[in-house]
Amino acid sequence: MRVRPRPALPGRCAFPSTRFHVSMFTAIDHAHMARALRLAARGLFTTQPNPRVGCVLAHGERVVGEGWHARAGEPHAEVHALRQAGADARGATAYVSLEPCAHHGRTPPCADALVAAGVARVVVAAEDPNPRVDGRGLEKLRAAGIAVECGLMREAARELNCGFFSRLERGRPWLRLKLAMSLDGRTALADGASKWITGEAARADVQRWRARSSALLTGSGTVLADDPRLTVRLPEGAGCVPPLRVVLDRTLRTPASAHVLDADAPTLLLHAPDAARPAHVAAVECAAVATRDGRLDLEAALRLLAAREVNELQVEAGPTLAGALFAAGLVDELLLYVAPVLLGDAARPLLALPPLAEMARRWRLRTIDQRPLGDDWRLRLRPA
Amino acid sequence: MRVRPRPALPGRCAFPSTRFHVSMFTAIDHAHMARALRLAARGLFTTQPNPRVGCVLAHGERVVGEGWHARAGEPHAEVHALRQAGADARGATAYVSLEPCAHHGRTPPCADALVAAGVARVVVAAEDPNPRVDGRGLEKLRAAGIAVECGLMREAARELNCGFFSRLERGRPWLRLKLAMSLDGRTALADGASKWITGEAARADVQRWRARSSALLTGSGTVLADDPRLTVRLPEGAGCVPPLRVVLDRTLRTPASAHVLDADAPTLLLHAPDAARPAHVAAVECAAVATRDGRLDLEAALRLLAAREVNELQVEAGPTLAGALFAAGLVDELLLYVAPVLLGDAARPLLALPPLAEMARRWRLRTIDQRPLGDDWRLRLRPA
Repeated sequence: MRVRPRPALPGRCAFPSTRFHVSMFTAIDHAHMARALRLAARGLFTTQPNPRVGCVLAHGERVVGEGWHARAGEPHAEVHALRQAGADARGATAYVSLEPCAHHGRTPPCADALVAAGVARVVVAAEDPNPRVDGRGLEKLRAAGIAVECGLMREAARELNCGFFSRLERGRPWLRLKLAMSLDGRTALADGASKWITGEAARADVQRWRARSSALLTGSGTVLADDPRLTVRLPEGAGCVPPLRVVLDRTLRTPASAHVLDADAPTLLLHAPDAARPAHVAAVECAAVATRDGRLDLEAALRLLAAREVNELQVEAGPTLAGALFAAGLVDELLLYVAPVLLGDAARPLLALPPLAEMARRWRLRTIDQRPLGDDWRLRLRPA
Repeated sequence: MRVRPRPALPGRCAFPSTRFHVSMFTAIDHAHMARALRLAARGLFTTQPNPRVGCVLAHGERVVGEGWHARAGEPHAEVHALRQAGADARGATAYVSLEPCAHHGRTPPCADALVAAGVARVVVAAEDPNPRVDGRGLEKLRAAGIAVECGLMREAARELNCGFFSRLERGRPWLRLKLAMSLDGRTALADGASKWITGEAARADVQRWRARSSALLTGSGTVLADDPRLTVRLPEGAGCVPPLRVVLDRTLRTPASAHVLDADAPTLLLHAPDAARPAHVAAVECAAVATRDGRLDLEAALRLLAAREVNELQVEAGPTLAGALFAAGLVDELLLYVAPVLLGDAARPLLALPPLAEMARRWRLRTIDQRPLGDDWRLRLRPA
């Protein structure tokens, strides 16, 4: 990579004292932060409940250290990069995809480590919304005389940790609704048969989205009808923190034989406060959720999951639960697999939604990604 | 364009006497035929009921004449190209996207004109299935000592005239089913409101598909519910032969006030043999079609339209008629516009199809084209 030399005040605004301080990041800054984000993504399946973070230490173009956070309880990205850089960290610029921590968690504060190593400048993509950090990491660095800039590729950094930001900023997980349908918007035959609408490539793709999820949620209706495993099957060698399996099960009717009660992954049954607890769920984690109009309060359920450190929540449910979540405005993203087949109008609908009185009220989405997967199509959409 | 010089026997097999005669077309041959096909496409909206045909006359790389067929009754592509080439036609190769005609139709035979002009070689993309031509054009040319080769870019040439080939080879029009739907496969609200699911770009695109159609077909139910105009609105300057508006109207219930009965385009009402003909359709073309199980016989209707020289038939109908055509195996292509909106399960289905007993019986399609149009998506699919 060859770019023009940086100007006298590299990466900073020429008017640092004005009210409208605007950082001017160079092409080198962008390249290193892009690398830090790619490093961060290596922890996509494993950092739960922590965010995915990457760090690059560099002198100009020359990289002297790289690191990423792999697993909760293990060193943060900055620590790995500092170890690799050794004495070369002195005077370097640290590119970190998330604000360095300022508190003693399971590991000592990274802000302190960066100060101690003598880095000259720290460029951060996104501020840490964690109330124990929340700007204090940046303050600590600035107090030590380090040049600190924030916001380079912020959107991409927040996207990588959409669940972490959602949990800390909104108090609920990032909710991804996975659906597989025919061209005519049908998810199963009239009798419920749905194996398989989409092909192998689409089904393998679903596993990767499961792997990055903190939890997979379904309803007891789906458990009774389809008996899903809700586990992650990745190609050999790829590991992940097994997502928590969550069943919305108001009356605790999940049968003893259900796959979700096996030992392959942890499971949480959410039930109404007055549900009788049958003997076969004695060893299973259960939690009561308030009801509203005779159904589990979906917002309360999501708050509970956020409190349990669920970042990304993938919902794989039937049209009733999926539709209720969507109509309540709780769906952040649709992960929609479309097979080039027709099932006809007797087959099951995609989402049960309240009838619309007029076209102007239709639910609008925007397509953020679209690609072929074998013979199928994958669309990712978000409420507009 | 620069390509290597052609070998001693340009464009022909080195073993012309073997049973398996294989033409070896050069890059120059391909380039000229590609040009002939692009010229042919200029007649996309206007040649009805004739096929779209283009012709290039060339000596090696050098083009000496070009032409395309614009309108029925006007000169064929070859005639335009020969006029442009003048004396340069002698010894040239003629690239024609469709076999030159050998019969006196509204214009004299093109095969004779090519012979008279002294062309040395004729390369044809597709054989003319017209029983009045059907190989006789090629025979005439060969009999005159002209080197004749056929099949260069045949598939593309047939695609350009899918309707013409369908009508002459299968005795029915090429049936394109146009549908506009929400992400969840819904075409209208429960009350029938469907204006507008898709955006302006998609609706403008529909007009271009209408413009290339010989006829637009709908059912009387749609006429009563939506009162469509079924005319072509193209940007100023673009002309087309107005497609015939065809209504499947078993009992002739199309009201006098219906837009399809206005003077903006010709209309044909297809009805049951025993339908009473109300006074207000006295001036409208009507034709009786046999019934089957109390409904108009769809195959008989298509045969009738083919006999009336309908090449491409675009169906814009409700789920019942659209579904019946699809289930009967009469749909050749789905032109599907998908808007990133949800309408919910109370809204109207895409196609009414017989319920499926098992997933293995699902109707499979293959995607032949996919592209964004504004915020919407357009998919073209054909039965697999």
